[in-house]
Amino acid sequence: MTNFAATKAMFHLPEGVLYLDGNSLGPLPKAAAARVGTMLQDEWGDLLITGWNKAGWMAKPTDLGDRVGGLIGAEPSSVVMGDTLSIKVYQAVASALELNPTRKVVLSDNGNFPTDLYMADGLLRSLGDDYELRVVDPEAVADNLTDDIAVMMITEVDYRTGRKHDMKALTELAHARGIVTVWDLAHSAGAFPVDLAGCNADFAVGCTYKYLNGGPGAPAFIYVAPRHMDQVRPALSGWLGHESPFAFDLDYRPGSGIERMRVGTPPVIQMTALETAMDVWDMADIQDVRTKSIELTELFISEIEAACPMLTLASPRDPHARGSQVSFRFEEGYAAMQAIIARGVIGDFRAPDIMRFGFTPLYVDEADVRAAVAIIADVMTNNLWDQPEYKVRNKVT
Amino acid sequence: MTNFAATKAMFHLPEGVLYLDGNSLGPLPKAAAARVGTMLQDEWGDLLITGWNKAGWMAKPTDLGDRVGGLIGAEPSSVVMGDTLSIKVYQAVASALELNPTRKVVLSDNGNFPTDLYMADGLLRSLGDDYELRVVDPEAVADNLTDDIAVMMITEVDYRTGRKHDMKALTELAHARGIVTVWDLAHSAGAFPVDLAGCNADFAVGCTYKYLNGGPGAPAFIYVAPRHMDQVRPALSGWLGHESPFAFDLDYRPGSGIERMRVGTPPVIQMTALETAMDVWDMADIQDVRTKSIELTELFISEIEAACPMLTLASPRDPHARGSQVSFRFEEGYAAMQAIIARGVIGDFRAPDIMRFGFTPLYVDEADVRAAVAIIADVMTNNLWDQPEYKVRNKVT
Repeated sequence: MTNFAATKAMFHLPEGVLYLDGNSLGPLPKAAAARVGTMLQDEWGDLLITGWNKAGWMAKPTDLGDRVGGLIGAEPSSVVMGDTLSIKVYQAVASALELNPTRKVVLSDNGNFPTDLYMADGLLRSLGDDYELRVVDPEAVADNLTDDIAVMMITEVDYRTGRKHDMKALTELAHARGIVTVWDLAHSAGAFPVDLAGCNADFAVGCTYKYLNGGPGAPAFIYVAPRHMDQVRPALSGWLGHESPFAFDLDYRPGSGIERMRVGTPPVIQMTALETAMDVWDMADIQDVRTKSIELTELFISEIEAACPMLTLASPRDPHARGSQVSFRFEEGYAAMQAIIARGVIGDFRAPDIMRFGFTPLYVDEADVRAAVAIIADVMTNNLWDQPEYKVRNKVT
Repeated sequence: MTNFAATKAMFHLPEGVLYLDGNSLGPLPKAAAARVGTMLQDEWGDLLITGWNKAGWMAKPTDLGDRVGGLIGAEPSSVVMGDTLSIKVYQAVASALELNPTRKVVLSDNGNFPTDLYMADGLLRSLGDDYELRVVDPEAVADNLTDDIAVMMITEVDYRTGRKHDMKALTELAHARGIVTVWDLAHSAGAFPVDLAGCNADFAVGCTYKYLNGGPGAPAFIYVAPRHMDQVRPALSGWLGHESPFAFDLDYRPGSGIERMRVGTPPVIQMTALETAMDVWDMADIQDVRTKSIELTELFISEIEAACPMLTLASPRDPHARGSQVSFRFEEGYAAMQAIIARGVIGDFRAPDIMRFGFTPLYVDEADVRAAVAIIADVMTNNLWDQPEYKVRNKVT
């Protein structure tokens, strides 16, 4: 059984803050500053260029890939870190399309995070006018898995509402229609158990700065099912995905296995911070995290609904149908969230009217939830948000 | 006049090491560990998600872009940081091709760094069979600027020999033939003055971990000439290049100016380290750096040629025809370089027979060069490299 008091003690949580935004940016692992400092001084500083070998920098993308893979049900050597989620979406969709060359349609839903749609759209424009990005309502995905579709590109958990797709069922249905799947796990990895291998998923991507706590701008990851590995030609064919990068051949030959999804020089400092975050995961069981997350979200919903009748639940009521966040709709949600943040409860706002709260058992406990509810209820029932200062929209996140 | 003793004092240079590989990975600025530690603790740790606004994280890619732009003759607001050089090459070439839609050929040379060729090849394959990557000898570029060519993609300085193309002349010639130019400044930025605006360059890209000393995996940069800015559609259309990222629109609309070349969430920790490296540049004049670099490379060549007749100069003899590195050919160059490194002089090897040494006046002075020559001469004249331990090729860089 995971000792959540122990994992909570591994994070720096500022005094006076109740942090319900770990679904956007996880907090600082206490070990990060010292470890990154050591990496800078002892590795970059003293080893200089030889750090690529002597300090294992070159292997970090696959070493960390295996650690992240352990949380998402990936086979060993099927996950590699690098770039941003947007870039990894591009690689995954481009590669998936090549596995299904007679079809020209990518299906997604309008609950997907916009960058996935933007990247796919940009890719399809490059490929030609006969390609199509088809975007349907989230509830209509299953019915739209027709046999003209090459790739189904779906984010498992809706970033606004927390609604969770059924990965196993949709993947099976897609495969039955000859469709290759790309799953975006941005709001899944570290939030609940994911079983990529068990679901027979084809490609998956995700970021590591949300529930995995890797820090601002932490690298993304990409998963390729081992059965596809040798057939995949990476669209973004960078030198570190080459079979022999340091031969400096003029022609590209994809590297073996998941290594071919590497592109350029990996961000060693960011990966070092991420390592300290993954050390916390070594102490946690992801199934325990899910169980606790459901307890916390159920508590939050029942308390908020009792205290704040003006808020409308936007997340699914069935805990198994949502990720690890809870969202409420409120017309003045932007101002309300600013007032709540000003009082030390950090959640976030998503246009047009979503107030979003993330629940992360590694460092958020029942007492935190009750304390946060008290503050939110005070703001909402006393209309404390109705101040001009809270209505100025100058925030970028 | 730049005070090079003062800039040298701003770097951590390990005892007993003579570092002639800053063209591969620059050394640690002494301020980096403290500054990154502060960023981790006071920004990520205490500000959490609000760091994107309150600590200016979201603006770092353009703030740093302007600082790097100052070293390469770029107009204000024409450079942005992010991703890796490979990704930025892809964006630049894809965008350049769209400015020249009736032509289908990208011209490059076989002295280009391979990842540029790999990325362009991958892009052209996606675009269709009628596209061609044409690779000629470096000396033949000018004669091959024919009017079927859409884009000339050239790395200004050859990573093996240091041979330097004439940016102004080639750009003029390209433009006269209706060709759009993409310049890779990996071995230029921070090595000598670059005048993108004065050369009328169209696109440029580069990395910041070599002569700019940003650290392992530091972000890349991309330049777009202001005259092209509004016509450029980024091929990698990520959410942070959107006109209004936090509106979460389903459709992509490119952001204003250089912002549209942003893709995903930027690597804040890496950018913080890079800031400390750019602080050193605030104390240096790039023209002084070039003058000093020529002095150091001329000294190195004359001393090595006098002491080591078995080494053949691979770099141009005219200092104005090379960047800030000097390379020699030697059949057993790999073993020789290992033996030299084992004695504290760090250079590197590039297949098949290139021994490469970088000269970086910010932290390498004349005494360092003379001391390095003494060690290299000892290894070469006494065949100290002829040991089995130096011949095992287990190095990745």
